[in-house]
Amino acid sequence: MNAPTSPIAGRIADLRNALARHGLAAFVVPSSDPHLSEYLPERWQGRRWLSGFNGSVGTLIVTRDFAGLWVDSRYWVQAERELQGTGVSLMKISTAAATDHIQWLVANIAPGGEVAIDGEVLSLASAREVMMALAARKVAVKTDLDLLGDIWPDRAGLPTAAVYEHRPPEAPMTRSAKLATLREEMARRGAQWHFISTLDDIAWIFNLRGSDVNFNPVFLAHALLDANSATLFVADAKVDAALQAALLRDGVRVAPYAQAARALEALPEDARLLLDPKRVTLGLRSHVRAEVIEAINPSTLLKSRKSAAEAAQVREAMVQDGVAMCEFYAEFEAALADPARTEPITELDVDARLSAARARRPGFKGLSFGTIAAFNANGAMPHYRATLESHAVIDVARGGLLLIDSGGQYLGGTTDITRVWPIGTVSNEQRRDYTRVLQGTIALSRTRFPRGTLSPMLDAIARAPLWRHGLDYGHGTGHGVGYFLNVHEGPQSISKAIPDATMAMEPGMITSIEPGLYRPGRWGIRIENLVLNVPAALAPDGRGSSGGVDEVGGAGAATGAASGGAVDLGSAAATTEFGEFLEFETLTLCPIDTRCIARALLRADEIGWLNAYHASVRARLSPHVDGAARTWLIERTEPI
Amino acid sequence: MNAPTSPIAGRIADLRNALARHGLAAFVVPSSDPHLSEYLPERWQGRRWLSGFNGSVGTLIVTRDFAGLWVDSRYWVQAERELQGTGVSLMKISTAAATDHIQWLVANIAPGGEVAIDGEVLSLASAREVMMALAARKVAVKTDLDLLGDIWPDRAGLPTAAVYEHRPPEAPMTRSAKLATLREEMARRGAQWHFISTLDDIAWIFNLRGSDVNFNPVFLAHALLDANSATLFVADAKVDAALQAALLRDGVRVAPYAQAARALEALPEDARLLLDPKRVTLGLRSHVRAEVIEAINPSTLLKSRKSAAEAAQVREAMVQDGVAMCEFYAEFEAALADPARTEPITELDVDARLSAARARRPGFKGLSFGTIAAFNANGAMPHYRATLESHAVIDVARGGLLLIDSGGQYLGGTTDITRVWPIGTVSNEQRRDYTRVLQGTIALSRTRFPRGTLSPMLDAIARAPLWRHGLDYGHGTGHGVGYFLNVHEGPQSISKAIPDATMAMEPGMITSIEPGLYRPGRWGIRIENLVLNVPAALAPDGRGSSGGVDEVGGAGAATGAASGGAVDLGSAAATTEFGEFLEFETLTLCPIDTRCIARALLRADEIGWLNAYHASVRARLSPHVDGAARTWLIERTEPI
Repeated sequence: MNAPTSPIAGRIADLRNALARHGLAAFVVPSSDPHLSEYLPERWQGRRWLSGFNGSVGTLIVTRDFAGLWVDSRYWVQAERELQGTGVSLMKISTAAATDHIQWLVANIAPGGEVAIDGEVLSLASAREVMMALAARKVAVKTDLDLLGDIWPDRAGLPTAAVYEHRPPEAPMTRSAKLATLREEMARRGAQWHFISTLDDIAWIFNLRGSDVNFNPVFLAHALLDANSATLFVADAKVDAALQAALLRDGVRVAPYAQAARALEALPEDARLLLDPKRVTLGLRSHVRAEVIEAINPSTLLKSRKSAAEAAQVREAMVQDGVAMCEFYAEFEAALADPARTEPITELDVDARLSAARARRPGFKGLSFGTIAAFNANGAMPHYRATLESHAVIDVARGGLLLIDSGGQYLGGTTDITRVWPIGTVSNEQRRDYTRVLQGTIALSRTRFPRGTLSPMLDAIARAPLWRHGLDYGHGTGHGVGYFLNVHEGPQSISKAIPDATMAMEPGMITSIEPGLYRPGRWGIRIENLVLNVPAALAPDGRGSSGGVDEVGGAGAATGAASGGAVDLGSAAATTEFGEFLEFETLTLCPIDTRCIARALLRADEIGWLNAYHASVRARLSPHVDGAARTWLIERTEPI
Repeated sequence: MNAPTSPIAGRIADLRNALARHGLAAFVVPSSDPHLSEYLPERWQGRRWLSGFNGSVGTLIVTRDFAGLWVDSRYWVQAERELQGTGVSLMKISTAAATDHIQWLVANIAPGGEVAIDGEVLSLASAREVMMALAARKVAVKTDLDLLGDIWPDRAGLPTAAVYEHRPPEAPMTRSAKLATLREEMARRGAQWHFISTLDDIAWIFNLRGSDVNFNPVFLAHALLDANSATLFVADAKVDAALQAALLRDGVRVAPYAQAARALEALPEDARLLLDPKRVTLGLRSHVRAEVIEAINPSTLLKSRKSAAEAAQVREAMVQDGVAMCEFYAEFEAALADPARTEPITELDVDARLSAARARRPGFKGLSFGTIAAFNANGAMPHYRATLESHAVIDVARGGLLLIDSGGQYLGGTTDITRVWPIGTVSNEQRRDYTRVLQGTIALSRTRFPRGTLSPMLDAIARAPLWRHGLDYGHGTGHGVGYFLNVHEGPQSISKAIPDATMAMEPGMITSIEPGLYRPGRWGIRIENLVLNVPAALAPDGRGSSGGVDEVGGAGAATGAASGGAVDLGSAAATTEFGEFLEFETLTLCPIDTRCIARALLRADEIGWLNAYHASVRARLSPHVDGAARTWLIERTEPI
C-alpha cells in the first residue's frame, strides 16, 4: 500500500482538527464560488487545494475518519492518478449532476450530527436539496462557516483585473436596450427588483468584459436592477472613471462588491424581487426580506439567442479560427515530417503552436478553455490536460490518434472545436471508431426539428450510430456556447439531462455537437462543431418528390455556411402546417480529417454531407490563407 | 349561429341547478373512475354523458355560465363535430397530460369560490396538483361530492361479469410466485402492507381476468397485500366458489368490493403502507391512517417485463393475428375488386370482417380496442371511430388511403397494429407522406440502445425522418403493451413526455412503434408494429469492419422474428465495455403495403430492412395460410 506522502494529507489533517474544534461531523467542499461559476478564481479553488484533484468538477467530503471525492466519468482516470497517496478515496458518479454524495452523507453521518457547507458558495437549489435529505436523517447543516478560512494560510485574495466595454460592432445591442428588455421581463413576472450573481449574465447585460478567471472573459460582480436604475457591485478600482461615467449615463451605478448583501437587506418587505434559485447562493439569499419570485434569469435565455448581427460576427470569427487551424496544422504536420528534426514534439508543443496561431488572428482575446492535446491513451480522458510533469511525445513511429480540443475568445464570438488527426499508421479499429463518431456528428448536424423541442430529446440522434455497435460515451452531446462569453452556457443542453421547459430550442442558439468514443488506455475520439439554430431550409410543399437529392446533399451544413449571409431569425420560411422548424447551420470551419475514415462504413448520404461540408470549408477559408496553409487546406478538403 | 338543440344542453342546465343548490362555482369531470382506468365502465362515463364527446380522454368544466371540454390534438376534429350545438366550448391542449384546465380555473374562478371534483375518481397526484394551484388563488376544492348522482337518473350500476383464471401455459408464472416477488419489493421499501387499485396490476398479480370494461380483460377490484395474505375486494357474485377456493389456497381472501375503504381505515397508525399516488384515488387515500410509503406499484414494472415464456406465447399470438390479417385482406381486396358487387363497402364493414377473421383464431378472446377503419379524411383523426350515424364508403373510383388500426386479445398476448392500404389510385403526395412515416417506423425499429435508456429519449429517432421535411405528428411514438391485458400500459412511453427514472427501458418490455402523419380533411397515415426489448445481437468486437453489411440487413427486425425462438432475457451476449445494449425484435407479422411507397425516397439500408421484414413475415405466416390468403401474403411480401 501507498503511504500518504503528498501535502494533501497534512491539509486534511488540519481540516479534521478544525472539524473537531467546531464539533462537526463533516465538511463538504463543492467546486463553486459566490457566483456559481464553472471556472473559479484561485480564492475558491479550495476543493483542489484540499484534495489535489485538478479537474474542474468534483465534490469533496471530509469526515473525522474518511475523505472522498465524488467525480463523474470524464474525470475518473485523472482523479485516480491525482488522488494517489493523498488518502482521499475516489467516489465514482455517473453524471456531474448526480447527488450520490448527499446519499452518502445520509447513510454515513449519525443522527444528531452536524455537517458544514459554506453557504456563500452554495446555490439555493443545492442547499435545499442537501438540507431536505439530511433533515430526514436528523442531521443539521451549518452554512455560515467557511472552514477553509481557518486552515488555508496562503489563500488568494479577490482578483483585480480591469473591466472593459464590449463595443459595437461586435456588441450590436446597446446596454440600455438590454436593460429595457430585462425590465419588460421583470414586469411580466410582477417583479420590481431583479438580483443577478452569474458573471456571464452580468457581462452580457452591461456589455462589459473582464479577466478575473481563466478563459471566461468575465469579472466578479453582482447586479441589482429596478424599473429605472441598476447597481453593479464590483470592486471599485476595476472600473475606471470614464467607464463609470458611461455606465451612469445608462442609469447604472457602481457600488463596492461587498455591499450586495446589504443592498438585498435594504429591500423593503413588500418589494417583489426576481431571482434564480439555481444561480444565487444561499448566503446572499439569506439577506433577503422582500418577497421572492423564483425563475430562471431572463438574461440566460436572452443571451442564448444570438441576433442576426451577432451571428454574422460569429461567422467571421469562425473564419479567423479556421485560418488559425490551417496555419497551425500545416506547420505542425511539416514539423512532424521534417527529417532534420532532432527535438521531439509533445502535446505541450501542440498547445503552444496552436495558441500562437490563434493569437495572430484579428479580434482574438484569449483561449476559451485550456487546450486539450491528447495523444493516444491520453485522448481516452475527455478532460485531459497535458502538464509539464506529465505529457506525451507525439511519436510518429508508434503511430495513433491525436485529439485536439481547443477554442478561442474573439470580440465577435467564442469558438470550441475538436478534431482527431492521424499520426503515422492508424489501425483499422481506430478507423472504425473514428467513423462511428463521425456518423454521430453528421446524424445530429443534419437533423431538423420543431422550434421548442427540448434539447435533451435530440441527444439520442447523435448516439444512435454508436449505440448500433455497442458503443457510447459518458459525457453530453452538446452544450450551449456564449458570444464572446463562457464556452459553456445554458439553458439548452443536448444530453441525457432530464429536460425542463427552459431547454427549448430557439432560433439563434449556438450549441456544440460533440459525440465521442473513449478506449481507456488506448485512444480517444471526439469530433466537435458548433452549430447555430436557424430556420430550416425546407423544400416548398409538393416538391422534392423526385427522390433523395436532399437526403444526399446535406443541406443543413452546406446552405448556411456556404452563403455566409446574415440569418433572418424572424423568417417564417420554415413554418409548415405542422409547425415552425429549425435546423443547424454548422459554424465551425475546419477539415475533418478524412485519412482516419473507414469509407466503406459510411452511407452515401453521410459521404454527401461530409463532402458538402468540406466544399464549404474550402470556399470560406481559401481566400484567407496562402502558402503551406492553403496547400494543406485544399488537400484536407478533397472530397472522398 | 346554431342554437343548442342536443340533449346535452338540458343536462348541463340540470348540472348548473345543482351547482347553485350546493353553492359551487364549478364542477370538474375528468375521464376517470375509482381505478383510474383508461377504459371506463358505463357508470363512470359522466363526462361523455354530460358533454356528448365520445373520445376517451378529455376534461369537462362546467361553471354557472361556461362549459368547456379540454382535449388534446388527437381529438380536436372529432370534438369539434361532437360538441356542435351542445353549448360546450372546445378547449385545445397540446398533450393529454397538459394541465391547461387547471390554469383556466385559476384564471376564471373568483377567490373565495368553491370548485367540486369527485375525489372517488381523482388520483392523489392530480388532487394535489389542482388543490395546490387553486389554494394559491384562495379557491376551495370540494372532493366529497359526486354531482352526477344528483342529475343522472338512468346512470348504470356496477358491472357484473364473471372473473376467470388466466392459466398455464399462457400464464407461465404462478400467482404465488408473483405474490412472493411483490412481498420482496414491499420489504425492500420497508412496507408491511400494499394497496392496489389499478385493474391491470390486480389482474396480473392474481392471474385473473374479467370483462367489466370493453377491450381490457380486467375486472373491478382493489387489493390489499400483507406479508402472508392478500384480500381481493371484488363483487362477491363475480368469483365462483371453485375460484374462491383456489385463491384461498394461495392465501387470497375475497371480500366485498365496497369494503376496501374500511379495510384501509382498519390499518393501525404504525403500519407502513405502500401505495402509488398516481394510481390510488384521493377518496380511498383519505381513509388511510397508517404511515404511507409512496412509490410506483412494483407490479407495474414487473408486468412490463415479459418473461421468455411469455415472449414465446406472444410470438405465437402474433402468428395468429397475422393469419387473421391475411385472411381479412385477401377477402376484402377481392370484395372491393368484385365486378358483381352491388352493395358499397364501408368502414363499418372493415371492422366487421376483420373482427370476424380474428374471432376464428385459436386463443382469441376479443378486441384489444375498438377498430379504427378510416378512409381518407377520416384517417386524419388519429382516434376516429366509424359509427352507424357517421362513416365513409370505401370508394375505389375516388381512390385514396385506408388506415386500419386494430388489435386482439389472445390468451397468449395482446396485439395492436396499424397499416395503411391503397384504394384505387394513390397520389404522389400520399406516397411521399406514406414513405416518410415508414422511414420513421424503420429508423426506430432498428435502433439499439443502452439498457436503462429512458424511453422518451428515443422519441426523436422516429420523428427525425419526418422533421427533416417539416412534418410531425401530435401523438406519442409508442406505448407499452400488456400481456393479455391493457393495450396501453406503463411504465415506458416513447413520447415527448418528460422522462422519469421509472421509464427506463428493460429487457422483456413490449412497446408500440407508431409514427404517423395527418393532413386534416385529406388523409392520415400511421404505420405501427409492436416490438420486444431483447439483448442486442452485436457483432463480436473486432468484426464487422468490412463495411455496411449490418447497416443494410436490418438485423433487428429479421433476427428475432425469423428465429422465432425464446429470447433468454438474462443473456449477457449484448454487454460491451460501454454497457449492456438492447434492440427491438419486431413482433408484429403483417405486410406493410409496398404499393404506397415512393421507392426513390428510401435509402438502401431502409429498403434492406423492409425486405428483411417481409421475408420474415412470409416465412412465419405462410405455413399457416392457404388459398387466397396465401396468394395475398406472397404477393404483399415481395421484395422491392
